[in-house]
Amino acid sequence: MQFQKVLEIISEDLQDVEAALKDNTCSDVALIPLISNYLSGTGGKRIRPILVLISSKLCNYHGEKGIVHSCIVEFIHTATLLHDDVVDGSDLRRGHPSANAKWGNEASILVGDFLFSKSFTLMANHSDIRIMRSLSRACLRMAEGEVMQLASHCNLASSESHYLEVIKRKTAALISSCCQIGAILGGAPPEQEEALADFGLRLGVAFQLVDDVLDYSAKEVRLGKPIGKDFNEGKVTLPLIYLYNRCREEERAWIGQHLGAGDLGLKELDQLLGWMKSYCALERAMELARAQIAQAKERLSIFEDSLYLEALRSVADYIGDRDY
Amino acid sequence: MQFQKVLEIISEDLQDVEAALKDNTCSDVALIPLISNYLSGTGGKRIRPILVLISSKLCNYHGEKGIVHSCIVEFIHTATLLHDDVVDGSDLRRGHPSANAKWGNEASILVGDFLFSKSFTLMANHSDIRIMRSLSRACLRMAEGEVMQLASHCNLASSESHYLEVIKRKTAALISSCCQIGAILGGAPPEQEEALADFGLRLGVAFQLVDDVLDYSAKEVRLGKPIGKDFNEGKVTLPLIYLYNRCREEERAWIGQHLGAGDLGLKELDQLLGWMKSYCALERAMELARAQIAQAKERLSIFEDSLYLEALRSVADYIGDRDY
Repeated sequence: MQFQKVLEIISEDLQDVEAALKDNTCSDVALIPLISNYLSGTGGKRIRPILVLISSKLCNYHGEKGIVHSCIVEFIHTATLLHDDVVDGSDLRRGHPSANAKWGNEASILVGDFLFSKSFTLMANHSDIRIMRSLSRACLRMAEGEVMQLASHCNLASSESHYLEVIKRKTAALISSCCQIGAILGGAPPEQEEALADFGLRLGVAFQLVDDVLDYSAKEVRLGKPIGKDFNEGKVTLPLIYLYNRCREEERAWIGQHLGAGDLGLKELDQLLGWMKSYCALERAMELARAQIAQAKERLSIFEDSLYLEALRSVADYIGDRDY
Repeated sequence: MQFQKVLEIISEDLQDVEAALKDNTCSDVALIPLISNYLSGTGGKRIRPILVLISSKLCNYHGEKGIVHSCIVEFIHTATLLHDDVVDGSDLRRGHPSANAKWGNEASILVGDFLFSKSFTLMANHSDIRIMRSLSRACLRMAEGEVMQLASHCNLASSESHYLEVIKRKTAALISSCCQIGAILGGAPPEQEEALADFGLRLGVAFQLVDDVLDYSAKEVRLGKPIGKDFNEGKVTLPLIYLYNRCREEERAWIGQHLGAGDLGLKELDQLLGWMKSYCALERAMELARAQIAQAKERLSIFEDSLYLEALRSVADYIGDRDY
């Protein structure tokens, strides 16, 4: 199934999600809907709502709660984007000025807090206690992952396993929770809930791996932010770890000198990408992403064939193949 | 009853709260307990836990849940302190370097997010759904209040009623929720729950009013941060609103010129405090605080006399009389 077809299958739900996202950022404080809707409006892929919706339908849930839970996970995600852009000092997101560039760090921090709080208010009013536990734990893991990443800033001794632990927490925990929510909404048996949670975890790891590869390899216009951003910010991701562990002493010295300095010109970027290529750093990271996708899909074998099973597999392929 | 006596009555509980605060910031990510405990260690007054504990005992609840709920409200409070200090660019809190001054804005934002998430995880595992609704709504109101305050930065046209709305949300909502939690834990009838929530709301308003007066009038060493900080940051609080609405044209011009410029020297501060005095700005703000305290205590008349009723009144007096 093509990803476009997935979007068609749930197109009515996705429209309801958009409306709910807008409704739930209403506030008499004008800056709140303004910033919240700005981020919603600049082209998020809605991967998390899509996963909630398809997973719940896979587990035979066709009620209304998919919408509000889509909204909850998207708000949590948006809140982390707002805070991450402040933490990273990012000026661009998806080809547009970031919220912090437009309205300042202060507003981004506080509107992020509003969206976090909104998601918890929605949970307190609409969610099963098991969903609350899953999501609050995911939020905790995300914050831990972000702090771990901050603490390993410019640390070229970071290992592959440390990197994987960071991305499991900062990215995969929430994506795992999205899939688990679908199982809980559908009242699926424990082994199906676990399979979906694990599917989501592996999908999330692959998602971040692809993100980190694209940071070095994407078309800048399509990515909507500069190439080499992670390197410039001192973020040590898997492609860099692979490169660093294989390259020669003088190349290591060069990397140590430029990492996090924010001084990559076109020439330096070409140099770095050349090494990435000759040491197969991006290719190896993509191999790991593809393996995670394959394992994720394998976890779905517990389910009987259905339209929604096909759709979920298609989302997994989309995440592995995307180029932005 | 003296406030010291209040602390004695619940001293065992408060010790348990300290232990629980420490236990619940455990994480394999070292920066998280480090920053969380740093803030706990630099002398918070624990007003919110005290209110949870006394309110619950007033409603005849003597079980263990007072401790975890004290922990929850203190974490929410600490998270907002971490974020507020970043938003305000504050270097000092309680006489010590602020967390952002010590570990950077990034760590403060993320550890704040961790503490928010931790409080929701604790709620999901320990709280009655009505407590979750009360607290998540309080968090939402707090974020709104903070954004409102940000949006009225340096706005000398701010009205008294706008100011009161800001502080109701940013400060009083959580304090109100603390008292309401006590009622919910004790299974108190609706009229008692409402009385306690309203008691807390007025107490919270008074708390912030006193804070805003102390910002101009306290002994700097005792306050642990510079005098005139709000003015320097462009925060238009009630003393300044009162002054601005009464003073002469040239004084208004002076205020407009210096507000938010961060250029108050000793001479300018003396000038400003002189006007505050001659126009009775601080005195009038304190009158309002005292009226709120009186109304708060009046709301407690629904309860029969008891040790805990006396204690709660004592907390109210303490908040009205404190000089730091």
